[in-house]
Amino acid sequence: MTSPLINRLVIAGFGLIGSSLARAIRNHPGLVGHITAVDRDPAALKVIRELSLADDATDDVAAAVKDADVVIIATPISAVEPLGAVIGPLLKPGAILSDVGSVKSSVLRDLANVTPAHAHLVPGHPIAGTENSGPQSGLANLFEGRWTILTPTPDTDRAAVETIAGLWRAVGSNVVEMDAAHHDKVLAITSHLPHLIAYTIVGTAVDLEDSLRSEVIKFSASGFRDFTRIAASDPTMWRDIFLNNREAVLEMLQRLTEDLSALQRAIRWGEGDVLFDRFSRARAIRRGVIEAKQA
Amino acid sequence: MTSPLINRLVIAGFGLIGSSLARAIRNHPGLVGHITAVDRDPAALKVIRELSLADDATDDVAAAVKDADVVIIATPISAVEPLGAVIGPLLKPGAILSDVGSVKSSVLRDLANVTPAHAHLVPGHPIAGTENSGPQSGLANLFEGRWTILTPTPDTDRAAVETIAGLWRAVGSNVVEMDAAHHDKVLAITSHLPHLIAYTIVGTAVDLEDSLRSEVIKFSASGFRDFTRIAASDPTMWRDIFLNNREAVLEMLQRLTEDLSALQRAIRWGEGDVLFDRFSRARAIRRGVIEAKQA
Repeated sequence: MTSPLINRLVIAGFGLIGSSLARAIRNHPGLVGHITAVDRDPAALKVIRELSLADDATDDVAAAVKDADVVIIATPISAVEPLGAVIGPLLKPGAILSDVGSVKSSVLRDLANVTPAHAHLVPGHPIAGTENSGPQSGLANLFEGRWTILTPTPDTDRAAVETIAGLWRAVGSNVVEMDAAHHDKVLAITSHLPHLIAYTIVGTAVDLEDSLRSEVIKFSASGFRDFTRIAASDPTMWRDIFLNNREAVLEMLQRLTEDLSALQRAIRWGEGDVLFDRFSRARAIRRGVIEAKQA
Repeated sequence: MTSPLINRLVIAGFGLIGSSLARAIRNHPGLVGHITAVDRDPAALKVIRELSLADDATDDVAAAVKDADVVIIATPISAVEPLGAVIGPLLKPGAILSDVGSVKSSVLRDLANVTPAHAHLVPGHPIAGTENSGPQSGLANLFEGRWTILTPTPDTDRAAVETIAGLWRAVGSNVVEMDAAHHDKVLAITSHLPHLIAYTIVGTAVDLEDSLRSEVIKFSASGFRDFTRIAASDPTMWRDIFLNNREAVLEMLQRLTEDLSALQRAIRWGEGDVLFDRFSRARAIRRGVIEAKQA
């Protein structure tokens, strides 16, 4: 029998992503020797134990990480820094610290400060998710055919990068490496801005007169319901994303606002050609998404 | 054998909605005696004949409608007025003229002008669709569990309204009557604004530097792909909607812009509480959509 890729893995923060990763690992016997789930929420720990999602479940992060070969932080971003400050000094020589956060520059900065010289930091971001939260919502196939972006620095230990890359590939993900700042720009437009817009438009509907609001729900099948699904995502996670990717989000939002003003003007002045042209160009990008098998 | 609800039905404009209606009717033998499909596009007529989507397919609208009991116009809105001007004078006594357009005030005005006193006008809007276009894209179950809004005036013949309502109910739709102007306000926020935003954000991505754009497609699973799906909808149909529902769309867009500015400010100044509060309120409306079985 070959030895596992990772002997002792700790997943700290066991929500949608953490529990999906654990479920996926369970489907590949021999990939990981032992999984410890860490969560500070007693209700989450109860679910983890009832569903046997990990070999071990605890709220004692210090005890969990001292023998770990790999620790993956899978909390909302605001918890990464304080949790990293506890975990970092306890890491054994050669251990790898990673994460799954949707913003990478701030995580890289925060965790680099607490990772000891004898350990390795390999920040990661699996581009996958659903609008649901909590360990009960995890899906074993969540990462299949999706991308995971790793943002090590040029001097990160290559064997450590390959271990984390190997874990994500084993659960079905494609893996790519990228500069953290570039990652944050790409995600600002593909993820952060769409979520901000969805939250906004659903919020605008919440504020409507009562007579309109109930009908907005009733007739939501016409486009609005897709936005309500996106806007059902975890508010804590998303607050943290916007606070930690401020510059890139504000830049992309500025571009969007300019483009929206141009369409608003075209509607006001009845410029059908402008509308048709813009709509046709947007339609074409859908083909690219389908061809890239991300539809 | 009981007589059909409608003896001779003409569907003028045989795209996604028209062909879905015909397919749904075919699944309910005895509902309609004879369906004539009218389309000016030879390629569409070819598909209709090959797939046997109607009893008859023609580009000669005048010949088709003169014996019709019900004519449903299912073209983009810009074609409704010219087509109505041809159809109206040819309608036989007691015939019913209806449509499926996403804007109702302008359609009601245009068609009321051409409907003779001996015929009945019952504008309608089935709240259903996909991002695909053309007769080959129709789905027999497209209207099941969805809503169809009818916007007759107070003096419209009730038997005519009941015939159109009965047709939509028979293909699985719930039916509600509404004032045309109110319909246009509700749809501005549930449908027209979401589509405008989706077109805008996808357009903003199209304009990115090449290095970013290819990655936007690659990593679209993070929220963006839902917008590309919405933005894949027919550009002609949507141009017409915005040109014909200008006032309501501009009003809702103004509200959205104000709300977006408030969130932009909260991000810039790091006001996490504001973001969390707004996101939490938006999340709550998702439950309403699920409870209303429109998810």
